[in-house]
Amino acid sequence: MTSTISINDNHSLKLSPLEVPNRLLLGPGPSNAHPAVLQAMNTTPLGHLDPAFLALMDEIQSLLRYVWQTENPHTIAVSGTGTAAMEATLANTVEPGDVVLIGVAGYFGNRLVDMAGRYGADVRTITKPWGQVFSLDEISTALETHKPAILALVHAETSTGARQPLEEVGELCRKYGTLLLVDTVTSLGGVPIFLDEWGVDLAYSCSQKGLGCSPGASPFTMSARAMEKLQKRETKVANWYLDMLLLGKYWGVERTYHHTAPINLYYGLREALRLVAEEGLASCWQRHQKNVEYLWESLETIGLKMHVEKEFRLPTLTTVCIPEGVDGKAVAKQLLLDHNIEVGGGLGELAGKVWRVGLMGFNSRPESVDRLVAALKEVLGK
Amino acid sequence: MTSTISINDNHSLKLSPLEVPNRLLLGPGPSNAHPAVLQAMNTTPLGHLDPAFLALMDEIQSLLRYVWQTENPHTIAVSGTGTAAMEATLANTVEPGDVVLIGVAGYFGNRLVDMAGRYGADVRTITKPWGQVFSLDEISTALETHKPAILALVHAETSTGARQPLEEVGELCRKYGTLLLVDTVTSLGGVPIFLDEWGVDLAYSCSQKGLGCSPGASPFTMSARAMEKLQKRETKVANWYLDMLLLGKYWGVERTYHHTAPINLYYGLREALRLVAEEGLASCWQRHQKNVEYLWESLETIGLKMHVEKEFRLPTLTTVCIPEGVDGKAVAKQLLLDHNIEVGGGLGELAGKVWRVGLMGFNSRPESVDRLVAALKEVLGK
Repeated sequence: MTSTISINDNHSLKLSPLEVPNRLLLGPGPSNAHPAVLQAMNTTPLGHLDPAFLALMDEIQSLLRYVWQTENPHTIAVSGTGTAAMEATLANTVEPGDVVLIGVAGYFGNRLVDMAGRYGADVRTITKPWGQVFSLDEISTALETHKPAILALVHAETSTGARQPLEEVGELCRKYGTLLLVDTVTSLGGVPIFLDEWGVDLAYSCSQKGLGCSPGASPFTMSARAMEKLQKRETKVANWYLDMLLLGKYWGVERTYHHTAPINLYYGLREALRLVAEEGLASCWQRHQKNVEYLWESLETIGLKMHVEKEFRLPTLTTVCIPEGVDGKAVAKQLLLDHNIEVGGGLGELAGKVWRVGLMGFNSRPESVDRLVAALKEVLGK
Repeated sequence: MTSTISINDNHSLKLSPLEVPNRLLLGPGPSNAHPAVLQAMNTTPLGHLDPAFLALMDEIQSLLRYVWQTENPHTIAVSGTGTAAMEATLANTVEPGDVVLIGVAGYFGNRLVDMAGRYGADVRTITKPWGQVFSLDEISTALETHKPAILALVHAETSTGARQPLEEVGELCRKYGTLLLVDTVTSLGGVPIFLDEWGVDLAYSCSQKGLGCSPGASPFTMSARAMEKLQKRETKVANWYLDMLLLGKYWGVERTYHHTAPINLYYGLREALRLVAEEGLASCWQRHQKNVEYLWESLETIGLKMHVEKEFRLPTLTTVCIPEGVDGKAVAKQLLLDHNIEVGGGLGELAGKVWRVGLMGFNSRPESVDRLVAALKEVLGK
């Protein structure tokens, strides 16, 4: 024991046990976790190599394949939030000099640009105004022009509420030997996704949106084509924590220690996925669609308009136009502090122009809509 | 809605709600979280930019400074397990070609070597047999020889149970303009640490050992000297998720969105730190020391020997020599399956030679020792 130095108590706080306001989280995420998920997280931990825990990891893998509709053996949860899973897709497949073509029509497209550059990619972009999506023709032309090693598209752009159609994109990519990388952070569990059918090679998501879990353990999947690129790399993956060759040995048959999994979060993720399977994927998607249509109608009855064209609106996240003369930030603050309802503000091109309203996972219920609309009526004086 | 493709139910499992065996985790970690920590995690989530959550982040920062005994403003929790926090120290400060000197006397020294290489470091090592530590003279000679930009040492080598003394190392480092990077994964909360007094510039830890939390949110701190090196970089940090310039704007006054924090884990970390502050850091360290001494004595009474010289043994993790003729793996399996007690096996040089027994955080109690020793007696037929 070092006993010659005395302890400095400056930063020692005398705190009470945690008490937090009970918010209804209707922003871009996190969403309120299902109560059964939180309950599952409050379970005594296992070691990360305990046979009982390894069995749970297998269950998570299987259920992730189900919700993504993929047969990819390498389908796992990354031990970090969705951003870590996003980074994992690029870190493993980008080699310095690779052309990476990115569709940018919102904040998360830009994030992919920044990340890919850090892994040495020769980044090319196609862009659209925030809230719009790329047509198949536009994608085809860009593939022809850039012949990229990777095409990255955001299926559900959390910053705009737009859904990028992905049908036939995978086929086009195969013509150019291009890997298709897709952000499904705000779609998994809430929006129809058919990864294999669409020919998606790399995808990532998060736990705290459509899946109704707590944030911190994030779905990741890669196809055999993507795995082949990884295995043929000439240099090590420039990220140890997210190296899928190492992680594959922990999630695979070898069960080689890589890192200490966030045990209790995996409990929660397993419960969240179990609930989706119990409800059934089609029912889960339909519930999200039905509730969001109820939201749109309800908002329209109080005179509010949606930013995205109906055909491309996400069932999970809606961008609502802030009416002229209304201080959007002040409204959001009042909703939060007076009504305990969180909605999000706009980012980038949409800053000050929209609120972002999420109906995701457990929160995709008519009661969420009713409570929000009642509060909005009061705050807006409608 | 895409309705033309039918849903594949192959990977949909019909599972029951989670039930796991109730283990006493006396391995190298995770350790059982304090019940109050699990309870705190079972609290309704807040948004990651909610004023109530930002206040909680401030509390975590302050309490982390307390447990590490540092004034570093940039003291935060990384949204990943200890390995992510480890990688964060190197990712932010290593620039290609930097000489990084690493003390390797166990598994985690080797991990630092692998990671530093991935960030382009010119890696040099000093080595010791697993279970031993470096003397100040050895460190001084190596600094003189390599004049590294960074010296990385493992304070508490989880693979060997040895405690690396750090007094005066920081002073030596300052002579060579070297940053001192220290792994405190298995020491924080359980072993005396005085980061500022020792001149440590970069440190990382985990939540699930001495702090008695669940894994997934990991302490990270950097000094003004380390921050200066980061700010003077010529290239972006080659890791977006762990970029401290970006993370600093989320944890700092700007509160700029970076990623969705693992909200419920932060609740748990705040509760774990609150409990350490309530107990008092000195008492917490003393408890760990007292209980481990009781462990050593109890194990000796049944004829077992410790691998590390007493002076350098960690209070948190003990390597126990497997007696000749005993199948260490079979014993560990029996302890797990028949007695619900987890102990760890040896890694690397110590594979098959030791068990690793942790008494950390909430599990550092005389009852843990009694239960383990009684079970060991039965399994070993003593």
